[in-house]
Amino acid sequence: MRFLHTADWHIGRRLHGFDLTEEQDYAFQQIETIAQSEHVDGIIIAGDLYDRSAPAEAAVQQLNRMLQQLNLTDKFPIYAISGNHDSNIRLATGTPWFPRTNFYLYTQLEQAFTPIELTDTQIFLLPYFEPFAAQQYFQDESLQHLDQSVAAVIAEMKTHFTPGKTHILVAHFFVNGSAQTDSETQLTVGGLASVPLSLLSDFDYVALGHLHGKDALQAPQARYSGSPVKFSLSEAHQKKGVYLVDTDTQTITFKPLSPLHDVQQLTASFAELTQPEFYQQYQLTDYFGITLTDTKPIPNVLTQLRTIYPRIISLNRAEGFVEQFSYQGEKRQQLQQQDPLDLLSDFYEHIAQEPLTDQQKKWAAAALKIANQEEK
Amino acid sequence: MRFLHTADWHIGRRLHGFDLTEEQDYAFQQIETIAQSEHVDGIIIAGDLYDRSAPAEAAVQQLNRMLQQLNLTDKFPIYAISGNHDSNIRLATGTPWFPRTNFYLYTQLEQAFTPIELTDTQIFLLPYFEPFAAQQYFQDESLQHLDQSVAAVIAEMKTHFTPGKTHILVAHFFVNGSAQTDSETQLTVGGLASVPLSLLSDFDYVALGHLHGKDALQAPQARYSGSPVKFSLSEAHQKKGVYLVDTDTQTITFKPLSPLHDVQQLTASFAELTQPEFYQQYQLTDYFGITLTDTKPIPNVLTQLRTIYPRIISLNRAEGFVEQFSYQGEKRQQLQQQDPLDLLSDFYEHIAQEPLTDQQKKWAAAALKIANQEEK
Repeated sequence: MRFLHTADWHIGRRLHGFDLTEEQDYAFQQIETIAQSEHVDGIIIAGDLYDRSAPAEAAVQQLNRMLQQLNLTDKFPIYAISGNHDSNIRLATGTPWFPRTNFYLYTQLEQAFTPIELTDTQIFLLPYFEPFAAQQYFQDESLQHLDQSVAAVIAEMKTHFTPGKTHILVAHFFVNGSAQTDSETQLTVGGLASVPLSLLSDFDYVALGHLHGKDALQAPQARYSGSPVKFSLSEAHQKKGVYLVDTDTQTITFKPLSPLHDVQQLTASFAELTQPEFYQQYQLTDYFGITLTDTKPIPNVLTQLRTIYPRIISLNRAEGFVEQFSYQGEKRQQLQQQDPLDLLSDFYEHIAQEPLTDQQKKWAAAALKIANQEEK
Repeated sequence: MRFLHTADWHIGRRLHGFDLTEEQDYAFQQIETIAQSEHVDGIIIAGDLYDRSAPAEAAVQQLNRMLQQLNLTDKFPIYAISGNHDSNIRLATGTPWFPRTNFYLYTQLEQAFTPIELTDTQIFLLPYFEPFAAQQYFQDESLQHLDQSVAAVIAEMKTHFTPGKTHILVAHFFVNGSAQTDSETQLTVGGLASVPLSLLSDFDYVALGHLHGKDALQAPQARYSGSPVKFSLSEAHQKKGVYLVDTDTQTITFKPLSPLHDVQQLTASFAELTQPEFYQQYQLTDYFGITLTDTKPIPNVLTQLRTIYPRIISLNRAEGFVEQFSYQGEKRQQLQQQDPLDLLSDFYEHIAQEPLTDQQKKWAAAALKIANQEEK
């Protein structure tokens, strides 16, 4: 059988304030086209369908439309689970009616132990869950951590294995040794919140969600499909797409998706960035994270750059700015007692890598005087 | 055919801070029992399934459970619409899958023109809509008010009438001459936001939602079922229930529901309210709105009364308190210039109907002095 494996749609997500609705729709249309042209037997969505527990109406409308299109119009079976970003309660709305058209969206741990039985395949849908849910289900308070909980879950699943069938697991968790980016939420604070790959070895394929890069896990039979769209600058270098999994030929093929607007990182000086020879090599409607190599102040730098790059999602300096707000603790107390003009001089020097000129000092002193008068 | 007509469930609603989950479940179980014992051919829910556009997870879980029970477990057809309290977008989740088990939940105006065809009956489900939606649908900007919009909608519906069949309309709006209570939200601010009864005369039965009293509209073939639970003190006198509509015998029968805890209004003095002979005649776990006939101050009156009546939802005085915050405009300006002690004396006299005693004046003066010192 052939399955399309995708995950982490995060419908409703914004990219530094920019609406991603069109990007998501554009990626969705490509996923639909791949599913059609590859004649897949089902579409796997491994969690985080929504970006938020209580998605906005527009996001609800968008996801509803997508799922309806794939299942009711295109007649694809769907095998989906809730992720850590979804409200498993809200996402459960309507789910008891869905299996009549081969749409399985599981949101509760206890559903994971009833595989979906296809001719030659068993699909186990394991929604995102917390160890507490496993404690409840197994009546076992020793299940304190995710690795213990998943071990118990998988042991129980195996008792439902039909020998000779292909066994697929759909899950949403962090597998040990995977590579994270900035844009995935930590599943738990502290604790053993990751799952050893060895636990998953009895499945013929493990379709994972949670990490947004397709290469986050290097394993022969377990993959993160990654998200269909780039959700942060840390994903700028990732190639987005879906996996095609053929259980007969035992092949896994990556199918890339093109972005409507890409996310890119540029590191250059203001002079370079504003030269046509430089910027004409880029698709200027893309989302840009810009790192300036300049050290001197540039008035209205963001406004100026936006006339060329309308979708700037971050702007910082190669030197200094990252440490800008790192003053802490005792140092802060000392700072509060310093003369404002000294503080300004230090700050300027820290950022611009050169001292204030005498003229600049005079301006600053005059401005401080006015500010002090206004306070009184 | 026999239908059970209910509406205005408002799942997620609170009564002056009290959770109504159990009251709602208790009413629901009775509705289910009536549907079963009367062998109804379907259950009509005429809007406001939820109380809020973005209901809490607990409310989502409760409504999902109820609808699943009625449709998937009990196998009742359901004919439902969104009301003004529902988000028609969120409530639409899953709806394209529901008709396979005869569950029709319509949320968009355009769905109203495809009646559900039963052997001898056509059911038209008209979700709550704003005139703007009618303008869009009919491409007619002259539809500025609800009466005009509903007239256009019903004219269009009639073109779909099959002669000889029974015609049922399910709708959620305010019909001219109906009796409102405090707890229904005004559908629009200003404007002709009500529908003349005459517009509805071609239907054999109009199952209405929006008003919470079963007697809000006195008409032979159009009824508000009212809500299954009392949602405010202004509904204290209402008998809650559902209508059984038999289209063969052309009878409409009211089936009452008992409250788990009733809502009651008590008007009495503090002395009466705290006498066992008085309060023992009541179910003290009910929700009480209490109007005190006393004029003198009673220290910790709410705390004292709650030891007897734990679910007090409002407490006021028969005299004076309603005008308490009615100072306006110029009077307010005068007040700002008055001496605080004079203000206090006036206020006390206004509420307690007698002047401050000399001892009370001394206490007040001392307290004011301390307050003034702390301000400096």
